[in-house]
Amino acid sequence: MSDAFFSSRWIERPAHVSERDGGGLADGFRAAGVACGIKPDGARDLGLLVCDAPEPASAARFTRSGVLAAPVLLCQERCALERLRVVAANSGNANAATGGRGLDAAAKVQGAAAMAAGAASEQVAVASTGVIGVQLPAERVVHGLLDARSALRPDGDGDLAEAIRTTDAFPKRATLEVELPAGAVRLSAQAKGAGMISPAFATLLCFVQTDAQLDPETVELLLGVCVKRSFDRISVDGQLSTNDTVILMASGASGVRVEPESADELALGEALDALMRQLALLIVRDGEGARRIGRVVVRGGNPTAVEASARAVANSPLVKTALHGADPNWGRIAQAVGAVLPGTAPLAVDIEIEGVAVCARGAAVPHDADALAAAVAGDEVDYAIGLPGEGAETEVFFSDLSHEYVSINAEYTT
Amino acid sequence: MSDAFFSSRWIERPAHVSERDGGGLADGFRAAGVACGIKPDGARDLGLLVCDAPEPASAARFTRSGVLAAPVLLCQERCALERLRVVAANSGNANAATGGRGLDAAAKVQGAAAMAAGAASEQVAVASTGVIGVQLPAERVVHGLLDARSALRPDGDGDLAEAIRTTDAFPKRATLEVELPAGAVRLSAQAKGAGMISPAFATLLCFVQTDAQLDPETVELLLGVCVKRSFDRISVDGQLSTNDTVILMASGASGVRVEPESADELALGEALDALMRQLALLIVRDGEGARRIGRVVVRGGNPTAVEASARAVANSPLVKTALHGADPNWGRIAQAVGAVLPGTAPLAVDIEIEGVAVCARGAAVPHDADALAAAVAGDEVDYAIGLPGEGAETEVFFSDLSHEYVSINAEYTT
Repeated sequence: MSDAFFSSRWIERPAHVSERDGGGLADGFRAAGVACGIKPDGARDLGLLVCDAPEPASAARFTRSGVLAAPVLLCQERCALERLRVVAANSGNANAATGGRGLDAAAKVQGAAAMAAGAASEQVAVASTGVIGVQLPAERVVHGLLDARSALRPDGDGDLAEAIRTTDAFPKRATLEVELPAGAVRLSAQAKGAGMISPAFATLLCFVQTDAQLDPETVELLLGVCVKRSFDRISVDGQLSTNDTVILMASGASGVRVEPESADELALGEALDALMRQLALLIVRDGEGARRIGRVVVRGGNPTAVEASARAVANSPLVKTALHGADPNWGRIAQAVGAVLPGTAPLAVDIEIEGVAVCARGAAVPHDADALAAAVAGDEVDYAIGLPGEGAETEVFFSDLSHEYVSINAEYTT
Repeated sequence: MSDAFFSSRWIERPAHVSERDGGGLADGFRAAGVACGIKPDGARDLGLLVCDAPEPASAARFTRSGVLAAPVLLCQERCALERLRVVAANSGNANAATGGRGLDAAAKVQGAAAMAAGAASEQVAVASTGVIGVQLPAERVVHGLLDARSALRPDGDGDLAEAIRTTDAFPKRATLEVELPAGAVRLSAQAKGAGMISPAFATLLCFVQTDAQLDPETVELLLGVCVKRSFDRISVDGQLSTNDTVILMASGASGVRVEPESADELALGEALDALMRQLALLIVRDGEGARRIGRVVVRGGNPTAVEASARAVANSPLVKTALHGADPNWGRIAQAVGAVLPGTAPLAVDIEIEGVAVCARGAAVPHDADALAAAVAGDEVDYAIGLPGEGAETEVFFSDLSHEYVSINAEYTT
């Protein structure tokens, strides 16, 4: 049992959860990742995930952008999201801002994946990630799906994770063994994401599988709660994507039944929560050009004020460059909070960095600057903000802003 | 007559306005800029501006941040903003998040400047810019004000502009001769600003003088209208400052009376508008690390939608890095607009870059990519966005996001 996956001090591995050496999908699932010719360098760019159970349960979450990619529109309009059996996902092309032709391309991919997997079209979700505004070469994807069908394997999760990468520096996946009161089940997940990350309730691509036996309503509930605590709480660059998709599928192949409102549901939920929060943190860790992660916790005020304040800090280029430079420049935190709370001056804001009080009731607090400078030089930096009142609390995880972010986004069309 | 100041293609110099060679303040004003020891390198860091007319008219605008710097709080609470005679402004320290001690320091500066200039305290505005959360060395400022008093000169505008610089790469000032129907008047202005720029209705420091004779109500009206069209329409990094202050003072020394709702008022307003818009553009041009400026014009929809869309584009790090890299990556523009208009999918957005249609009704438009790439390599890049409907229009000027921005903000406490 290793904690290689649960690498953040902010995410605790539940005692009934262990990492499975060697990965692999949850029982009842097969996956593949192939190169179909979208990426010019010949890298894997097409993933296929199939659930072999006849009656799976599933749920999905999508970006809330007004500019939705064709695959997102298609999933929302033509899929039975509560009983998905197949996911076809490509990288290298977002199929976004592609109009009617883009919708046709997504429908072709859906149809071909349905054929390849022997499923009804409405049970096939499609997802895309990559450059916006370029037509998807649907024929290449359709041909690639034939290759992918031949390559489907119970341990194909690594290839699938590989096939959905874009600017990701490392693949993001995990396989967890979960001891429920009712028996042992498995959770597996594959995710991608590094830039254009500022989820509303979902961002990036993330596919999660379990062999537990769940009602669709339970899958929906668990996914909704866990997305809100994971992908909804991160920001790399404050930029909501056109393509964000998260799908949880349950094959039931373990024979372990998880009843609604049972101890099993709670234990599975805890495992899923830890899994998705750590995956979300990996996406921040892999934020384009990122060197370190910040967590900002805002308490007090009211739900609107804490959310706005946390987002303002997490998305401030001044805070993010200070994080990058290991500069405990808390004045920028005060500035970011003040900017989203007009009409509150003088605001009695409290600020702590790594547990050191630097600002109390709006005014500077004498502190050991050298000790603080050392504390903010680590991989993870904790910011705590107190607003007047005791109404609410939230947190956002965010990456720093580096020269590499500029290079990645100024020098390549992504 | 030169157009050295009116350097942007987006700002037209009105025919009745000309630049004054050699600068200088409007009649009835004197200014100085000295080194009082706030900046460790011994550079000028204290400016003093005095109007010698007994009954000047003035108006001011301040940041809307909830975290207001002490000088802003002091000006709002203790100044007669409609008849200011003196401005004392320091750089190197923002006197923000400094609590009661910071307010005391600002009051000391105000008192000392009143004595130095022989004015009532309530006629003295104070302004600060620089690092947040460090106590202002008020004694140094008070001593410096004595030096500044001795140095007051009618052509002290250059020294004043110099003394308020922080990360500015170049000083920002202008002196304009304005031919009104009623006679000739002068406008002079000194501004600073390069980072933490995202005005709500004012940002940065900007001091404007005229020797026209105006009622306080006219000064208030003209400043309000012109701020809305200038400093309110720019963004370097989307970060509203704690200290933004814009002050317009009229000495009346020219003897040229500008009546409310007259042709003179209109002509003076045009000159002030061009002056402040060009100053605002200089601030964007000097945006920390900036190489080029973008202008995004959004038409259609409604006022809320066009404002949110323009801000989203101007503040998107993905759009700003693309601008930096001369990459006509319009997919990021579609993404930014979509992110702030949830629930509108599929959004029939139109996008033009430098007059080239790249996206129509939400879908890519074939275009000459090489010609477009050449067009976005210039100093100023024009983006036009059309939303469904015909309700509204706005524009925002913004800088690119460069490696230098990261260096400036990661490597120095500013």
